[in-house]
Amino acid sequence: MKCSVLTALGQADGFVSGRELCDKLQVSRTAVWKVINQLKEEGYEIESVPRKGYRILHRPDVVTAEEVGSRLQTEWVGRPVQYCAAIDSTNNEARRLAESGAPSGTLVVAEEQNQGKGRRGRSWVMSPGSAVAMTLLLRPEIAPAHASMLTLVMGIAVARACQGFCGVETKIKWPNDVVADGRKICGILTEMSSEIDYINYLVIGAGINTYVRDFPEELAQKAVSLHELTGSRPDRAGLIAECMRQFELCYEEFLKTQDLSGLKDEYNALLAGIGGRVRVLEPGNEYDGVSEGINERGELLVRRDDGKVEAVYAGEVSVRGIYGYV
Amino acid sequence: MKCSVLTALGQADGFVSGRELCDKLQVSRTAVWKVINQLKEEGYEIESVPRKGYRILHRPDVVTAEEVGSRLQTEWVGRPVQYCAAIDSTNNEARRLAESGAPSGTLVVAEEQNQGKGRRGRSWVMSPGSAVAMTLLLRPEIAPAHASMLTLVMGIAVARACQGFCGVETKIKWPNDVVADGRKICGILTEMSSEIDYINYLVIGAGINTYVRDFPEELAQKAVSLHELTGSRPDRAGLIAECMRQFELCYEEFLKTQDLSGLKDEYNALLAGIGGRVRVLEPGNEYDGVSEGINERGELLVRRDDGKVEAVYAGEVSVRGIYGYV
Repeated sequence: MKCSVLTALGQADGFVSGRELCDKLQVSRTAVWKVINQLKEEGYEIESVPRKGYRILHRPDVVTAEEVGSRLQTEWVGRPVQYCAAIDSTNNEARRLAESGAPSGTLVVAEEQNQGKGRRGRSWVMSPGSAVAMTLLLRPEIAPAHASMLTLVMGIAVARACQGFCGVETKIKWPNDVVADGRKICGILTEMSSEIDYINYLVIGAGINTYVRDFPEELAQKAVSLHELTGSRPDRAGLIAECMRQFELCYEEFLKTQDLSGLKDEYNALLAGIGGRVRVLEPGNEYDGVSEGINERGELLVRRDDGKVEAVYAGEVSVRGIYGYV
Repeated sequence: MKCSVLTALGQADGFVSGRELCDKLQVSRTAVWKVINQLKEEGYEIESVPRKGYRILHRPDVVTAEEVGSRLQTEWVGRPVQYCAAIDSTNNEARRLAESGAPSGTLVVAEEQNQGKGRRGRSWVMSPGSAVAMTLLLRPEIAPAHASMLTLVMGIAVARACQGFCGVETKIKWPNDVVADGRKICGILTEMSSEIDYINYLVIGAGINTYVRDFPEELAQKAVSLHELTGSRPDRAGLIAECMRQFELCYEEFLKTQDLSGLKDEYNALLAGIGGRVRVLEPGNEYDGVSEGINERGELLVRRDDGKVEAVYAGEVSVRGIYGYV
């Protein structure tokens, strides 16, 4: 109901009359009036003018289910939205929801994460309001070995959204970071529950630095926020909705071939360090070469100095740009 | 404590004196006496003779933590044992324990499963006392893509245990069933929680038909129990302990190369239908060929009629013996 009112007000150009809202939502004027008041209490500035109706003057920077839900332009990605004021991590919450049967497309969003996760159990710190912390639950009918490609799909979606919604040009550090100005702006963490040949569910978490005033010293050279790059505080709900819209588009493309054939060129155009020298660190094996971009399976092609091209799987190695990624 | 008494009595050839038990366990004679009485109440027949001590005449067919624990001959596999009188499924319980931090090596054993699982969410029916239902929790430091090999490792361990402990010769139906007399005696279900390049944990469940008097009609031609093959009711706790011992040995071999190099020959000797014709069913692709056994990555090598050898990954296809597996 709150979400429907926000959606209707958000889609309108100017005022929406009380009658229009009543008709659209099939409720009484009193009910509409109550919701408008609730929204005002939550920080929405809503102007109401007799005989014209209502219009939103200002939305608070919140990422509630209603606010995010009212901004979504997707068929199924991000539906439903599960909002948490504070949570251990959105990935953990998404996994718990998955275990209890939540549908593919469910999106978990949190204002505050107190045990945010990076890869391999590393922690990821986030103070309230400083970042987007979101996790998308999927139940794709693909082989578990192909799941890592979806991390790359989310990378493209986030890069597109940063560009289209915030005007920030980003690059992707293969396989799972989005960087801008040579520093990390978003990390993506994919976790999966699977059998040998069957994915029970998969969660893709993305943490986007939106408004971080002071990174801890050890991160200041490595991380950056959208606010720092644009000078303005990004509208997080809108950014989330745009990520979901772009993910849905990219995912559709992915499903056509169940690989990255249709996204590879775009990914490689976004790829940091392509054409540059990289170092591949495999357990017990380390070599240098030139990054030639990904193939349709999302593997990074590295041309070794002897001319041989290796397809590096995200699961097995880490790749460093020898001269950085700026 | 109960487990230690059972272990001491089990390891002894004849009687164990009360004093020996007190010394070994560092407790009073009253404490020993209390435990002996508890065990008697649980169905253990324990003879006590003045000036000689105690000896076990008969163990009940139970799979409690104490009984299984007292039979283990492993370093870390199967330690600790978590017993459930009734549970949804031992895989689910192992996953829950894993989420709350249980160590690698934890074994879940149940007397009754009411939502036993086969692959891809299929159900697996088991009445109390009719089967071994167990799940081993591991946290291997290997790539997720290599995890499927551990299903094969468990297959070898179960086959060895059926042979060594029950005298039943079994075969393995690649990748995850143990068969005897052409019928299924054990199914193995591996589930994993992972990131792209990191295994959070892995659970390997094995259900072994031990004493099933009447299979449902639709299974009678496809399934068999150890009891039917040997004429006697197998000692489940001992069988579980032997599976764990063999798994530990096989796993040690696996870790040397992180693949099946050291186990491949044994696996292929156990492999049902090797040298025979098989049909490979891939999504959108179906072909016949001759099974040539597994390679060191656990893939099944199938020589197609045009001479080309395909390495079939368990994750992607199903393989049927065209003329059965007897």
